[in-house]
Amino acid sequence: MKLIGRKSAVPVLRLARTLRAAAVAILISSSAGADDDLMEAARQTFKPIPSVVPAVKDNPVTHEKVELGKMLFFDPRVSASGIISCNTCHNLGTGGVDAGPTSVGHGWQRGPRRAPTVYNAVFNVAQFWDGRAADLKTQAKGPVQASVEMNATPDRVISTLNSMNDYVVMFKKAFPNEVAPVTFDNFARAIEAFEAILITPAAPFDQYLEGNTNALDDQQKAGLKLFMETGCASCHNGINVGGQDYFPFGAIKKPSTSLLPIADKGRFAVTKVAGDEYVFRSAPLRNVALRPPYFHSGQVWSLKRAVGVMAEVQLGVKLGDKEENDIVAFLNSLTGQLPKIEYPILPTRTDTTPLPSLGK
Amino acid sequence: MKLIGRKSAVPVLRLARTLRAAAVAILISSSAGADDDLMEAARQTFKPIPSVVPAVKDNPVTHEKVELGKMLFFDPRVSASGIISCNTCHNLGTGGVDAGPTSVGHGWQRGPRRAPTVYNAVFNVAQFWDGRAADLKTQAKGPVQASVEMNATPDRVISTLNSMNDYVVMFKKAFPNEVAPVTFDNFARAIEAFEAILITPAAPFDQYLEGNTNALDDQQKAGLKLFMETGCASCHNGINVGGQDYFPFGAIKKPSTSLLPIADKGRFAVTKVAGDEYVFRSAPLRNVALRPPYFHSGQVWSLKRAVGVMAEVQLGVKLGDKEENDIVAFLNSLTGQLPKIEYPILPTRTDTTPLPSLGK
Repeated sequence: MKLIGRKSAVPVLRLARTLRAAAVAILISSSAGADDDLMEAARQTFKPIPSVVPAVKDNPVTHEKVELGKMLFFDPRVSASGIISCNTCHNLGTGGVDAGPTSVGHGWQRGPRRAPTVYNAVFNVAQFWDGRAADLKTQAKGPVQASVEMNATPDRVISTLNSMNDYVVMFKKAFPNEVAPVTFDNFARAIEAFEAILITPAAPFDQYLEGNTNALDDQQKAGLKLFMETGCASCHNGINVGGQDYFPFGAIKKPSTSLLPIADKGRFAVTKVAGDEYVFRSAPLRNVALRPPYFHSGQVWSLKRAVGVMAEVQLGVKLGDKEENDIVAFLNSLTGQLPKIEYPILPTRTDTTPLPSLGK
Repeated sequence: MKLIGRKSAVPVLRLARTLRAAAVAILISSSAGADDDLMEAARQTFKPIPSVVPAVKDNPVTHEKVELGKMLFFDPRVSASGIISCNTCHNLGTGGVDAGPTSVGHGWQRGPRRAPTVYNAVFNVAQFWDGRAADLKTQAKGPVQASVEMNATPDRVISTLNSMNDYVVMFKKAFPNEVAPVTFDNFARAIEAFEAILITPAAPFDQYLEGNTNALDDQQKAGLKLFMETGCASCHNGINVGGQDYFPFGAIKKPSTSLLPIADKGRFAVTKVAGDEYVFRSAPLRNVALRPPYFHSGQVWSLKRAVGVMAEVQLGVKLGDKEENDIVAFLNSLTGQLPKIEYPILPTRTDTTPLPSLGK
């Protein structure tokens, strides 16, 4: 493995992890009880998605908050135009993302990056491709205000919600200890609570991690082994098989500018640290098969091709056709059970609800 | 009542009906058992929404067809951009319509008319504001192809559906007797079948029509009486309290050009009969309180104001404040029970699915 393109201490650290992962992989392949060793190595590297809703920091997930958050998530009237909801770009019917490559927002403007999935997002170390939001309640405030997305303001959102009594009542129920609960912070907290239930347990890989060796077929096991041996798991690990830390895109070899547009320097915009140029949060791979196209630029439509690209630019490895297929088979085992969501009936606008605004 | 603005034999016929309705109303108010008479007159004029899914002409409504139709209704990938679904403009969470005034489609283009509701649309005499589609299966083919809406083609839709095996399997199940069931006709039939279940029974007014005199309060009964006496019911009658026939908008007095834009001559575009200039299908008023703004131009945001305008331009009557409030109270009794819809998980695109296309 040829190591090139190092830029700072941070990537070096990550590349060291890559090597460690490779070392673990050697240990797997040389042992006698290979199947048991593979499962044991997998268990050390990944964690199953729980079947219960996870706790959220500083935001107890209550039924009332989830119900409110669901309505807000599906309500297009939190956008200036009245036609873009959270679900427009994070469509729960298509893996929690949109059609891509990048999202279309207010005024038919195209956003700079692919919409990340909301499914299992609660398990990520931070939100957005560059991790600029520490949690989902912080994330939820972003797209509403972005001129290229919903183009609204916190004031407009609060005016909209206050204009419909059913929403006011639901905020009071969701935040029972607050005198004036209809706030932009609580709007975001309710959405975070709803998103916390958007977890997808019971994927074949989860069943495997929980001890059912038959939950993966031979090809998927071969893919899992390759995924760890080749070094993919050094960035894509933990409960979300990624989404836990930040890494340079193009650690070994610079991707083409269509995959890695020059103007988008990733986490550098957040930290202003030179070593964070073109650094992104590793993509969480849960349900990855459900949501092409791939990468923050959304330029790769085939999962197999995405695997090939990543091996090459992150690990300096040219995978063969069978190896790519095996890894894709493993990635298919990451598709879990999506929650059943009843489409919410929303409160009706009133004479005091701000009118839709399609302009700038 | 002053009768002006007659243009052809057709409006004359309709105005005659208006007078007949007024005559019926006089009968109501002069009788002794006024409550019984009101209910009897209402039963002669309206019909309750059934609690069972209605039969659809030439298109048996089967479970398999409804499930497929639901997916198609919510699938944004039947649009060229990949982000506009039927539900974008006929949002089931907001009364089956969008935020208005008129719909926003491909390229952020604004359509010429307000989206009509899909709820109970199966009971309308024909579809669209001008009735140019005889039924919902014909209607369903329109917006998909309209450049200002989804901007797709039948070929593109069929390529998209054929590219995802889950859809092919569902078409086979929904149309079990067909050798090659993935057709644009069947796409439309499945959507029609889904829309046939979008009925909203058990409104207070339905309960009233079924004999429960207490289902309406006194103000709502006063509003109902006024609705029939004033002549509203001469156009807004039947099961959908409208949607059964065509009438000139501005029968007595021409509305302002913001409400009735000069360029949109309504049903004239369909029939080319001079008398059909500015003729529209009477708006079905079921759940009307759920879906401001009003009229095909979507320019009136208040239901009370809409009532006032209609009395003036259609019937030459200037209603008082209390009368408008009473009629609005009656219209509120038309809000039924909306069906619970589980948001569908859609098939995942494949390498052969047409790419999203945002341009012209």
